[in-house]
Amino acid sequence: MSKDAAGLDRFYSIIPAGGIGSRLWPLSRADAPKFLHDLTGSGSSLLRATWDRLAPLAGPDRIMVVTGRAHRAAVEEQIPELIDANVVLESEPKDSTAAIGLAAAILHHRDPDVIVGSFAADHVIADVRAFRRAVTQAVAAADAGYIATIGITPTEPAIGFGYIHCGGHLDIPGAPDAIVAESFVEKPDLETAKEYLADGKHLWNGGMFVARAEVLLAQIGESDPELLAGLEELAEAWDDPARRGPTVDRVWPRLHKIAIDYTVAEPAAAAGRLAVIPGSFDWDDVGDFASIAKLHAGGRSSDLAILGKNARVLADSSSGIVVSQTDRIISLIGVRDIVVVDTPDALLVTTSQNAQRVKSVVDALKLSGRSDVL
Amino acid sequence: MSKDAAGLDRFYSIIPAGGIGSRLWPLSRADAPKFLHDLTGSGSSLLRATWDRLAPLAGPDRIMVVTGRAHRAAVEEQIPELIDANVVLESEPKDSTAAIGLAAAILHHRDPDVIVGSFAADHVIADVRAFRRAVTQAVAAADAGYIATIGITPTEPAIGFGYIHCGGHLDIPGAPDAIVAESFVEKPDLETAKEYLADGKHLWNGGMFVARAEVLLAQIGESDPELLAGLEELAEAWDDPARRGPTVDRVWPRLHKIAIDYTVAEPAAAAGRLAVIPGSFDWDDVGDFASIAKLHAGGRSSDLAILGKNARVLADSSSGIVVSQTDRIISLIGVRDIVVVDTPDALLVTTSQNAQRVKSVVDALKLSGRSDVL
Repeated sequence: MSKDAAGLDRFYSIIPAGGIGSRLWPLSRADAPKFLHDLTGSGSSLLRATWDRLAPLAGPDRIMVVTGRAHRAAVEEQIPELIDANVVLESEPKDSTAAIGLAAAILHHRDPDVIVGSFAADHVIADVRAFRRAVTQAVAAADAGYIATIGITPTEPAIGFGYIHCGGHLDIPGAPDAIVAESFVEKPDLETAKEYLADGKHLWNGGMFVARAEVLLAQIGESDPELLAGLEELAEAWDDPARRGPTVDRVWPRLHKIAIDYTVAEPAAAAGRLAVIPGSFDWDDVGDFASIAKLHAGGRSSDLAILGKNARVLADSSSGIVVSQTDRIISLIGVRDIVVVDTPDALLVTTSQNAQRVKSVVDALKLSGRSDVL
Repeated sequence: MSKDAAGLDRFYSIIPAGGIGSRLWPLSRADAPKFLHDLTGSGSSLLRATWDRLAPLAGPDRIMVVTGRAHRAAVEEQIPELIDANVVLESEPKDSTAAIGLAAAILHHRDPDVIVGSFAADHVIADVRAFRRAVTQAVAAADAGYIATIGITPTEPAIGFGYIHCGGHLDIPGAPDAIVAESFVEKPDLETAKEYLADGKHLWNGGMFVARAEVLLAQIGESDPELLAGLEELAEAWDDPARRGPTVDRVWPRLHKIAIDYTVAEPAAAAGRLAVIPGSFDWDDVGDFASIAKLHAGGRSSDLAILGKNARVLADSSSGIVVSQTDRIISLIGVRDIVVVDTPDALLVTTSQNAQRVKSVVDALKLSGRSDVL
């Protein structure tokens, strides 16, 4: 990858590695969140795969990971090359604006010209070359002053993703595919999703944002000046070992919890400042077990996907997915589209059709005081 | 229960406690066969419930249990009142004619006038009074020289049971309901089962046989003289501690393996020597998980039966049965007619419709050398 592409020499990736992935319980837990799991059977965790996808863009020294204190050891085990200056530990989760905004503010404080790009730690992208081509264009758009995102060309009327409503072509040097985002739209119903697929004007919102740190922070400040002030106070003290701790203790608890969709994506789109680079690579946020099953089966619904290094599965006339984290024999007979997740202290049995409802179990367990298995 | 009923003072029950119950894997195992489990949620194992059903008939001293050497400790734990003289340990399984025939031969050797009744250790009968009334009539029929059985009045066109084709009424003192058995018929297809249910001439074969030991042994001898000779040789030496061991070692390996249906029930029916006492109590041989589920649901298919003292099940829109032998949280979402059997080293997930196919898993595990979980 050439670093001559506009802005790429000033590019820095941010990986917000938070979020448990409740719909993937009991595989994903508070102490073993989704991004630490190998959900593709590739041998790499989602986090590691995200890192490997980004490292060639600006080098492994230019990727910052934002994660919870509890996950520090696990993250460092996954990424031995991660340097201390590139780890931002959250003392408590404050949603994506704070996570990404703080990383951007720290990086901006270190280099006012930095261009940052934020990429979730728990998404799956198979075609890394196509991904990096899209990011390179997004960086060029960012260099030109836009907040850029990568929109995924839909392959089906998915109801589990948000969409970006796209407008006309933008003329940005180094970003020949860039188009303007008209608006972001929430997860649609099936009828609407079919219309989106048919009209060719809608892309999936992959939740990737690339911008000059300065521009991103200004957008956050427009939406929530108090939050920006907190982030800048933290960033200013961050690299001073004596000041970081007290500043975090004072400022962190007051940070607003708000998703970056509301502080950045939607207002930037409304203001015509959001450029979309269409990406036609396979992308999935692996939001539930049905999507993992689909990922493994390559679309063949008759298949049974088996996840787990030591999985021992005997299946007869069965399809769906088995996730095995124990060494037990798992036997399936005549169960279609089944989801079986076998862990040492919890077992889930559901179907692909009900995979989205797994979150309700997590809620029920919380209510009943069983957070030891969450 | 009055012991004045004809023959009841000479009655002795035999409980053959063998058979793993492969269709109930992984709950039933070689080292934890079906009869040792509480499948009804009553708090008693099937063996213990069988014992408790029989004890009032002729007293707890007059029940003999035939089981494998490996199950001696478990059987004695279930039935502390079982005396040594009433335990027959099989050195290897030789099917039901040998098991029941040996017990009958031993009892006959001790008391030539004894009337024996054989009752499987792993069937479920809720109405014990109706059961004992039927046995009392069967004993009277046995006293009159018949081989008697109890036929269960069908409540549905079951295809999982054998049937008894019944003929005319018999005039036996003390057995007013006795009718003659025309023949035994194997498990029918659904069409035939519907005809059986409609014609009123067919009863389910509950596998219970009552006869004077002398008559039973003579019937075995007619069918298989060699087998009878072996059983009598064993019985004659049984109560002599010095001779039992060597005799068992010499004779046991040569005993023919054959079900009592072929040596006793069918030939006796063909010869007009088999009397049937119709029993209108609920009876089930709990042959697979679907029948356990049905037993618990009381016929309501929307229910989820939960077996296991420490079961912790979170179910949402699910029906069927969960058997829990671990302390894991088991969560079901939107799975209908499901069968989940959760044990420390093996997990089964299937449906009621496929419950009969569980045996094929057991066969597959045998073939693949995984008898450690069988």
